[in-house]
Amino acid sequence: MLRLGPFAAAARCLPARPRLGPLCLAGNRGSFARSWLPAGDRGALYRQVRAAAAGGERLPVLKTPKGTRDHAPAQAALRERLLSAVVSCFKRHGAAAIDTPVLELRETLVGKYGEGAKLIYELKDQGGELLALRYDLTVPFARYLAMNKITKMKRYHVAKVYRRDNPATTRGRYREFYQCDFDIAGQFDPMIPDAECLKIVHEILSDLQLGDFVIKVNDRRILNGVFDVCGVPESQFIPACCTIDKLDKIPWEEVRSEMVGEKGLSPEAADRIGEYVQLHGGLDLIEQLLQDPQLSQNKVAKEGLGDMKLLFEYLTLFGITGKISFDLSLARGLDYYTGVIFEAVLLQQDHEHLEEPLSVGSVAGGGRYDGLVGMFDAKGRKVPCVGVSIGIERIFSILEQRLEASGEKLRTTETQVLVATPQKHLLAARMKLISELWDAGIKAEMLYKKDPKLLKQLQYCEDTGIPLAAIVGEQELADGVVKLRDVATRKEVDIPREKLIDEIRRRLEP
Amino acid sequence: MLRLGPFAAAARCLPARPRLGPLCLAGNRGSFARSWLPAGDRGALYRQVRAAAAGGERLPVLKTPKGTRDHAPAQAALRERLLSAVVSCFKRHGAAAIDTPVLELRETLVGKYGEGAKLIYELKDQGGELLALRYDLTVPFARYLAMNKITKMKRYHVAKVYRRDNPATTRGRYREFYQCDFDIAGQFDPMIPDAECLKIVHEILSDLQLGDFVIKVNDRRILNGVFDVCGVPESQFIPACCTIDKLDKIPWEEVRSEMVGEKGLSPEAADRIGEYVQLHGGLDLIEQLLQDPQLSQNKVAKEGLGDMKLLFEYLTLFGITGKISFDLSLARGLDYYTGVIFEAVLLQQDHEHLEEPLSVGSVAGGGRYDGLVGMFDAKGRKVPCVGVSIGIERIFSILEQRLEASGEKLRTTETQVLVATPQKHLLAARMKLISELWDAGIKAEMLYKKDPKLLKQLQYCEDTGIPLAAIVGEQELADGVVKLRDVATRKEVDIPREKLIDEIRRRLEP
Repeated sequence: MLRLGPFAAAARCLPARPRLGPLCLAGNRGSFARSWLPAGDRGALYRQVRAAAAGGERLPVLKTPKGTRDHAPAQAALRERLLSAVVSCFKRHGAAAIDTPVLELRETLVGKYGEGAKLIYELKDQGGELLALRYDLTVPFARYLAMNKITKMKRYHVAKVYRRDNPATTRGRYREFYQCDFDIAGQFDPMIPDAECLKIVHEILSDLQLGDFVIKVNDRRILNGVFDVCGVPESQFIPACCTIDKLDKIPWEEVRSEMVGEKGLSPEAADRIGEYVQLHGGLDLIEQLLQDPQLSQNKVAKEGLGDMKLLFEYLTLFGITGKISFDLSLARGLDYYTGVIFEAVLLQQDHEHLEEPLSVGSVAGGGRYDGLVGMFDAKGRKVPCVGVSIGIERIFSILEQRLEASGEKLRTTETQVLVATPQKHLLAARMKLISELWDAGIKAEMLYKKDPKLLKQLQYCEDTGIPLAAIVGEQELADGVVKLRDVATRKEVDIPREKLIDEIRRRLEP
Repeated sequence: MLRLGPFAAAARCLPARPRLGPLCLAGNRGSFARSWLPAGDRGALYRQVRAAAAGGERLPVLKTPKGTRDHAPAQAALRERLLSAVVSCFKRHGAAAIDTPVLELRETLVGKYGEGAKLIYELKDQGGELLALRYDLTVPFARYLAMNKITKMKRYHVAKVYRRDNPATTRGRYREFYQCDFDIAGQFDPMIPDAECLKIVHEILSDLQLGDFVIKVNDRRILNGVFDVCGVPESQFIPACCTIDKLDKIPWEEVRSEMVGEKGLSPEAADRIGEYVQLHGGLDLIEQLLQDPQLSQNKVAKEGLGDMKLLFEYLTLFGITGKISFDLSLARGLDYYTGVIFEAVLLQQDHEHLEEPLSVGSVAGGGRYDGLVGMFDAKGRKVPCVGVSIGIERIFSILEQRLEASGEKLRTTETQVLVATPQKHLLAARMKLISELWDAGIKAEMLYKKDPKLLKQLQYCEDTGIPLAAIVGEQELADGVVKLRDVATRKEVDIPREKLIDEIRRRLEP
């Protein structure tokens, strides 16, 4: 499991963090032309570029596209640990991995995301098919199931998705970001796969020790029932859902006025909806709504409430109801949900130890989408699905800021041994020894200098967290030994050459 | 290390391989409309879609974009093993991971790929920056170094890149494909990092047991020297390189006529080049060329040959010269190389055991590019770099076809225990037990049915390769035990509930 403490065990090992701010060089052509001149001996290529520059072109602006970022080694290492914690949970629940292309046919994505559609990145028409970058991993999964006529599958998929959204990078909102999805497709007994999805969210958020959290649960059928009994016409159910979905960001008054103004609901309907969607609780609330004079008469609401009750039973068996809240304000923005929906949010008080309190929003979400696969099938054959997506970018932001605040540093490499020499003219000895270590599967480095100073070599171990140095000098070569140095304790022992690999392995045992 | 034999140890565990052929549904509107009608109770969304269909729209074509593909679980599992073998070699050599966006500013990529530029995927101008999909991982790495003013770094990067090339999927050529890059940036003593890159190629190709291979090595400076002494003007060096690069695909006669026809070289120059580029050998050839009356007078060729000699010395220390061929026909297609270049090819005879002999071309390549980072720097500051890219798609194709030919199957999940019940009305018991196992970090599944038959549950273990079944029936519940079944031997033992987790861990020890 991912815990921040132990990360720093090997500390003192990270190169200075690169400044990631954009270095805009536009308009800097004067110094470019001047400095480019003594470019030296590579002839043709440089002359080409120089000619282009003289012709009015300029150096490219040095930045990543808006809303995207590089990961320096420390960030890549943190992300690898985070993703591996998530993936090991998915594997613990028996999921297989699949992969789909970053590119999809444009028509595959059209009509699946409601208002989100305007955020889809489209590719330039360069001849051939019209393409777009995937917006999530769910629609490609549904396309995959339909295309291969698969009716039963438990899969995970960890990959980047793309949205031309307004980036809010401090809160972990990017235009290119990872999604970590776990989905169960197939016709099964009600709420068993749904309960497992919630168990997974609970396991991951607990393992990551992100602080206290709550998982809000609702059901699109209950919401549709509410809309119905409040007098909303069926054609307005999805738009109303999208408006309700904003309740975690804006107050009810604004949501109400959007419903009445933009969506054309009557003020009375809006007020009645308001009474329902401000309710949240547990089993008791479910029971109360099952007795509600209007809702209890509504077929879909009753189905939803019955399943919600069953879900709570299962969550009790899993021992996780303490973190679950049945919340009628939860709506989820996407069109394709048809049943249970859920969203996990971190509770604010746990960020007190950070310099500035974070507002990270939801860190996981998902739900049931029984109709999506059918939208891809010529005969409309349905494959019921339920799934969860872990909001890895927001979690990553929190861990990154927590790591920064702690001053701890992650090791970015796994090198176990530095092969070093104490005198000049021993490059050949280093190369022979390091080659033996590599061939034995030991992670080893040497400095890329013919005659590095011993101090520099040992300093490199300290800087990058390498625990052992294998030193071969003239005396060691003559004696057929290697001096093995423990970098932390500075203790050195001569080891017979033929026993070196075994000794290194012994020292590195956990 | 990746070996194909052991993959199948857990055999009998793969769901039928999905048929990946495109299922074109265009024009199938009749059956779509008919089957869509009884869509049921999801109201609004379905009616919207149905209305769209009635309005003349059709079901999306069910395929992935040209030159791309999905990975089914068995393929994803094979790819994960392959990538992890490559990454562990990169880590063994002390590299840190970085990540960069799939999207780059268009201007970042412009002018770096010569003839390759026409294969760059560009994004539609949707307002804002002009973007493109990365074409390789090398230019983004150079951009990253320049942007962060990093002058020394050893990094690996495994990620997808995009080229609008003509796909040849049986040979592993796709439009979306993985690159696995290892690069060393920094000013070091000559040929030490270059030699390590070749060692890495040697290690990876040996570990993967792909059969016999050879790593061709050359140096752009030697080629430039050859062009120079043959009377080629400097402005034609790069185009001449691109033509020479085709020598592995087309015979010398055609290359010659392209040089004379398209590139405008004199027939005499082309013939003299022809004499050089058909040479290949080892140290003896280097010595011979160092004595060559023309080349020995050429400054850059002499530098290149001197470094090539040094490189061979180092490769001798690494013990890998047996697989290295100094080959003057090797040119590499990319503009940015400035020194050593290399390419690994599999030797054909090793594919005899496959049904059809494969022609997979090169499986790794790379070289030195000392000028690329400087192209991004306002002051033209250079950061010398050398790197290697593993041609993972081609290797994947070979392993996939080999696996298929062997009839062996990969396990696609890692589930260790199936939680099962032998009687009805025991769902709660299963859920409680599986929850305990998950919380103890054990990989466990159960069927998503209230009352599955025991036989079905055991069959699932056999089908998916789950080694253990933990069975709780009424008797076991009464006795406070769980029946632990070894799926392979069918032996069952009652284990006290409180000792179950330890017993499972003990059984799963390697």
